[in-house]
Amino acid sequence: MSKQKIVVAYSGGLDTSVMVHWLKKNYDAEIITFTGNLGQSKELIGLEEKALKSGASKVYIEDLTEEFLTDYAFPALRSGALYENAYPMATAIGRPLLAKALVDVALKENATMVAHGCTGKGNDQVRFEVSVGALAPDLKCIAPLRTWEFKSREEEIEYAKENNIPVAITKDNPYSIDDNIWGTAIECGILEDPMQEPPEDAYLHTVSPEKAPDYAETVTVEFEKGIPVKVDGKELSPIELVNYLNEVGGKHGIGRIDMIENRLVGIKSREVYEAPAASILHFAHTELERLTLDKAVMHYKSLVSHEFASLIYNGLWFTPLREALQAFVDKSQEKVTGLVKIKLYKGTMRVAGRTSPYSLYDPSLATYTIEDQFDHKASEGFIKIYGLPYKTINRVEQKANETNITV
Amino acid sequence: MSKQKIVVAYSGGLDTSVMVHWLKKNYDAEIITFTGNLGQSKELIGLEEKALKSGASKVYIEDLTEEFLTDYAFPALRSGALYENAYPMATAIGRPLLAKALVDVALKENATMVAHGCTGKGNDQVRFEVSVGALAPDLKCIAPLRTWEFKSREEEIEYAKENNIPVAITKDNPYSIDDNIWGTAIECGILEDPMQEPPEDAYLHTVSPEKAPDYAETVTVEFEKGIPVKVDGKELSPIELVNYLNEVGGKHGIGRIDMIENRLVGIKSREVYEAPAASILHFAHTELERLTLDKAVMHYKSLVSHEFASLIYNGLWFTPLREALQAFVDKSQEKVTGLVKIKLYKGTMRVAGRTSPYSLYDPSLATYTIEDQFDHKASEGFIKIYGLPYKTINRVEQKANETNITV
Amino acid sequence: MSKQKIVVAYSGGLDTSVMVHWLKKNYDAEIITFTGNLGQSKELIGLEEKALKSGASKVYIEDLTEEFLTDYAFPALRSGALYENAYPMATAIGRPLLAKALVDVALKENATMVAHGCTGKGNDQVRFEVSVGALAPDLKCIAPLRTWEFKSREEEIEYAKENNIPVAITKDNPYSIDDNIWGTAIECGILEDPMQEPPEDAYLHTVSPEKAPDYAETVTVEFEKGIPVKVDGKELSPIELVNYLNEVGGKHGIGRIDMIENRLVGIKSREVYEAPAASILHFAHTELERLTLDKAVMHYKSLVSHEFASLIYNGLWFTPLREALQAFVDKSQEKVTGLVKIKLYKGTMRVAGRTSPYSLYDPSLATYTIEDQFDHKASEGFIKIYGLPYKTINRVEQKANETNITV
Amino acid sequence: MSKQKIVVAYSGGLDTSVMVHWLKKNYDAEIITFTGNLGQSKELIGLEEKALKSGASKVYIEDLTEEFLTDYAFPALRSGALYENAYPMATAIGRPLLAKALVDVALKENATMVAHGCTGKGNDQVRFEVSVGALAPDLKCIAPLRTWEFKSREEEIEYAKENNIPVAITKDNPYSIDDNIWGTAIECGILEDPMQEPPEDAYLHTVSPEKAPDYAETVTVEFEKGIPVKVDGKELSPIELVNYLNEVGGKHGIGRIDMIENRLVGIKSREVYEAPAASILHFAHTELERLTLDKAVMHYKSLVSHEFASLIYNGLWFTPLREALQAFVDKSQEKVTGLVKIKLYKGTMRVAGRTSPYSLYDPSLATYTIEDQFDHKASEGFIKIYGLPYKTINRVEQKANETNITV
Repeated sequence: MSKQKIVVAYSGGLDTSVMVHWLKKNYDAEIITFTGNLGQSKELIGLEEKALKSGASKVYIEDLTEEFLTDYAFPALRSGALYENAYPMATAIGRPLLAKALVDVALKENATMVAHGCTGKGNDQVRFEVSVGALAPDLKCIAPLRTWEFKSREEEIEYAKENNIPVAITKDNPYSIDDNIWGTAIECGILEDPMQEPPEDAYLHTVSPEKAPDYAETVTVEFEKGIPVKVDGKELSPIELVNYLNEVGGKHGIGRIDMIENRLVGIKSREVYEAPAASILHFAHTELERLTLDKAVMHYKSLVSHEFASLIYNGLWFTPLREALQAFVDKSQEKVTGLVKIKLYKGTMRVAGRTSPYSLYDPSLATYTIEDQFDHKASEGFIKIYGLPYKTINRVEQKANETNITV
Repeated sequence: MSKQKIVVAYSGGLDTSVMVHWLKKNYDAEIITFTGNLGQSKELIGLEEKALKSGASKVYIEDLTEEFLTDYAFPALRSGALYENAYPMATAIGRPLLAKALVDVALKENATMVAHGCTGKGNDQVRFEVSVGALAPDLKCIAPLRTWEFKSREEEIEYAKENNIPVAITKDNPYSIDDNIWGTAIECGILEDPMQEPPEDAYLHTVSPEKAPDYAETVTVEFEKGIPVKVDGKELSPIELVNYLNEVGGKHGIGRIDMIENRLVGIKSREVYEAPAASILHFAHTELERLTLDKAVMHYKSLVSHEFASLIYNGLWFTPLREALQAFVDKSQEKVTGLVKIKLYKGTMRVAGRTSPYSLYDPSLATYTIEDQFDHKASEGFIKIYGLPYKTINRVEQKANETNITV
Repeated sequence: MSKQKIVVAYSGGLDTSVMVHWLKKNYDAEIITFTGNLGQSKELIGLEEKALKSGASKVYIEDLTEEFLTDYAFPALRSGALYENAYPMATAIGRPLLAKALVDVALKENATMVAHGCTGKGNDQVRFEVSVGALAPDLKCIAPLRTWEFKSREEEIEYAKENNIPVAITKDNPYSIDDNIWGTAIECGILEDPMQEPPEDAYLHTVSPEKAPDYAETVTVEFEKGIPVKVDGKELSPIELVNYLNEVGGKHGIGRIDMIENRLVGIKSREVYEAPAASILHFAHTELERLTLDKAVMHYKSLVSHEFASLIYNGLWFTPLREALQAFVDKSQEKVTGLVKIKLYKGTMRVAGRTSPYSLYDPSLATYTIEDQFDHKASEGFIKIYGLPYKTINRVEQKANETNITV
Repeated sequence: MSKQKIVVAYSGGLDTSVMVHWLKKNYDAEIITFTGNLGQSKELIGLEEKALKSGASKVYIEDLTEEFLTDYAFPALRSGALYENAYPMATAIGRPLLAKALVDVALKENATMVAHGCTGKGNDQVRFEVSVGALAPDLKCIAPLRTWEFKSREEEIEYAKENNIPVAITKDNPYSIDDNIWGTAIECGILEDPMQEPPEDAYLHTVSPEKAPDYAETVTVEFEKGIPVKVDGKELSPIELVNYLNEVGGKHGIGRIDMIENRLVGIKSREVYEAPAASILHFAHTELERLTLDKAVMHYKSLVSHEFASLIYNGLWFTPLREALQAFVDKSQEKVTGLVKIKLYKGTMRVAGRTSPYSLYDPSLATYTIEDQFDHKASEGFIKIYGLPYKTINRVEQKANETNITV
């Protein structure tokens, strides 16, 4: 009988390299690695060789960047989802896609198990395992970092040396970093102290407002049905568009986020993010919605955004509720077409103009000039009925008080 | 029989000055003016004389600034209420207090009517009349601007001249401005075009980020149960505290808001605001809540904030729902005590540190160092149960599909 | 130049008969009547003649019953919309369709105005006029009952006699009744006293529980994607299905509702309804959802139901928010397929069984027998993480208290 | 050194009797039992002796019924909390009180551990352990049923016999029952099949509608600020009141609930409940709220009810969110004073009248008689403004379509 196969979500770092070897030994299994590219800045060159040297029998490397933007990041953008009103969720929104691609490999390879390198107290283990379970409930998930014998990075390095597992001899990065085209998450080290500002060297893609240029730069973003399609009049592919905004935003100090955040696993953590493109796009998209959504949709959608953000953050992408809420969002975006000009300057974003063929802003109703077409006298009747319940409440209370009822 | 009395909400501007005379004539009534000071920048000197010359028989001028901050603006701050996630509502939150003070005068004077100078298409008429109705349902509200014969500012000026009503010979301000200690609203003129940026001369209290100093300044705000009580270690009265933050914030270009907004009366309008102190306080308060509120309260409160903001914006302060939601908010603030350091620089605010005796951020649970006390193995059971429904869904669908049921 | 045309929403009752004549005279216009049949119990025979005799030049009578059920009542059912958790909204859900059909006639006839017979304090005027405005904003709405000279029914009858308008010499019904296939609304008379029970003669379609048969009857309703398609195994058209359930439900005293309700126009009213089929279908549909929707969708959908009900009740059917919420609902119903057996007996409904190919109830997980496949040990880890925040809160408070901080 | 102490939540049944012995042996600890009486129907006579014979060194038995109603069940009632719109939660709302009383004993006795007899897949283990953790985070919770060696009831009985643990020789009840004064939960056996109706012998306190008397009986319930205080004019203590309503309700077949329910631990289960008093009180309370709460509070409170129910069901009573929501509820109940007459007949409840000194139902506004004081003409202005956004939407779309923009 042939060996069981385990597909490992492989990054090439210390943890997953050691894991390949460890799983092969402990499970007596054939190890296949899978690496999904979501547009992270780190090079993937040499990854295949590394995986094979660590013990893998087969290596999958897939570029998922376009799918990531189109089917995950942009729907999140259209929904307005910002976790705890702040975090555009680059890592969180990437996990379900990585899980899905991993499951696809596992099914193709007839593997019985998949493994990941997440720790036991983060969100990613949950996002990963819940997604795998939703897509392939019979596939077993293994999380060696929760259970193996290594108590520190040093012990892992020791194991790697003993077993000829190639590990990069890099200068120790004091931070733990997760990075993709939609944004970067930075944790650990001095960042664990909420009274400390993030040091400049924690950031990969942005300068500080102080270091940004002394001039403002304007970018014009165009949306079609809530999807960004052009910048400064030029049609761009999703990847081009996001890369460009990351660059120009990062140059002007846009998109740094420093927050105390509620994790899924019951604790608060301190998180630092940078996401220039995502920040610009959320800002522009919201401004366009202010112009094109009617009040009722806009207000209700802000509740939906909140829930949508929780679902993404909590690893619940492949669930019926996410699908149903996305149906709501899709419907809401039909008229979110138009452009927003944004001025970037030393960490600030300002709207320099917005317009849409579906703009519900009607100057002839809004104006205070003699062009005004609003029927001012209608307000009297409106207010009479709108305020009626509160007159009634007052009268009832007065009467109740008069008849000696103690309230 | 003595004449009926009308109490007029009086600002001293053209509209309300003409109104005093017009009401006296058209209603054959005795006119009493009431002016409430909410800390607006405009001087109130000479107002009494002006009112009397316009035809008032009695003049009330009251300083309500402290009450405004303590009982209206700070509760709004604690609730996190930002209308459409952006506007801290200086004007909106002042109206119920002005209405209440006006009603108090009317009841004291045995007046049968009150009058205001709001137009027929704004929010303020509604806030004003609904508040009056809720407090004194039998008091009649008159809104001359909705019904009188004047079609333009020029016609009003003509009437004023004819009737010796004192009107200031000021350079024409192209904007309509409402101003109090909590913020300023700027409308009209070129601002009615959403493709135009607000010109610099539209702003009263803030410089542009470009004109702000080339150095960052740090302010430390301390809260007790959600109420700001100290800045940079100094205990300040509400008025001192807000004035100081307005000054330092304005200097660094903080608190400008430019938005398309959904009015209460069914139209969109373009609004420009400045509110340096309110912006700094909301920012700091939110950061402190991230540290001190548990996830469940924080997430639910964000829904309450949304509703609370709508109630304030929609003139529904004196209503049972506002009171009930405020009871929720009050309870939620019991541990929102601590300090937040904020760096102000060219229009940006950054947290430079936050701490609280009630901080729920527990480094020994959050850390990735060997101090970690989180039970990583618990996650396995957690995820198993947390993800179980989605495994079940998948299995049910697979089975249904196998038995040839078309979904 | 030819006369303007007014299309009148015509019922054949006193109000609208008088209105045809009155409008013709007062507007010097050509009157076209439109009557939509929503399956009401009242005969439409003789209506055309009556309309013509009242002064109409053209008469439209359309049977909209099937469209009503398919495109209005069933979507409301699928959404779970019950106004104030009680009222399945027969009248409210019919108004937008009547308005739409009326607008269609008006556009076809090049009419410039439409008129309706609703009073000035009910919900229907709003539903009617908002729908017309949303579909044809330039069509003027006239509501003669709000403005005309008649102060009582007697004055209208007088006018009818003087002008040879045919009015039925019927025994005076003490109630005001609105009736269609989805349900009946009964108002006025003694019902205005909330301390009085509705007399038996107020009801048209149901017997009292006391008068219902002494035996239970079971009906089995089958749904496909949330739409009722079969009863007792027989495929029925929407009209057949609803008529049958109205009959059997009415016979067993099902579907009477007696409530104090919040109207759209700021007052409370006392309303009595009967809706046997709608009650049975909502009950059965909910039971099937309990079996087929996962918890997250079910709980979120209950919030959507609430909003959906408000939209229908408030006349906001033809709005983007209703469309977006319906997209959510449609998505949620994809697996709401299966059957529910209901026992009807003297006003009670009991589930006698439910089953679905998409049932998420998994006996092997739920059982307490030895067939149990649930991993009991997982609960330990689950609870550890699930309850962690509340342990932390307690510890933080204890520590804060110990260090002499007053909470 | 003295032995550690474990306080056991003791019911006197097989599981907890065996548990006392098992814990004593396996933990080498001193066992103290705690039994809280919540008004269950089962006798507590002989319990002390039984506990001692099973191995306990000390026995606490406390009557918590009054506290249960006053501080747990009635607040839940006032909040309107019904889990999944159906279940008044007798078991769920009792758990936090039992946990609190157990913690009190444990602290008094300097115990280091507490133990309960809940299984590993129910809700109660979570409610219990989360409550203990929130009140005494350092107290260890033991759940032997999740981990011990016994695989069946038979093995437990065997162990009991071997160790002289007294176990009642009762006829085997095919159901698992949890019972207190607020209601009864019935599970297991044939009830695990959702196509089967609950057999009559599953119910303890109610007759079937068929077996109920052939006459209706009216009960009048009076509330003060949302708390039930009188029945039929007689002031009753909480226990008397609830006992009386259980009796009269049970006699008329009121309060049976049969549902598929979403458990906290990720599965659906089939649950059967009976709760005559709770059903009558929720029904009456809601009717009184329809009369006394204004629309805005009533509609918002229905969202709060939903959340409050989830908190109770999910074991989150001792949490800041429950406290904050209860502050909202408390405020909302200030005018919920008045009486509701309810007719009970063969499983049905009908309102036979309701009245309150704070009734917001104003006949002079609601009436269609000549007493009408509603200003019908105000509606025109109201509708104009209320419907304005939807006219604007239509016009914008038309214009966009005309200018060849594809939507």
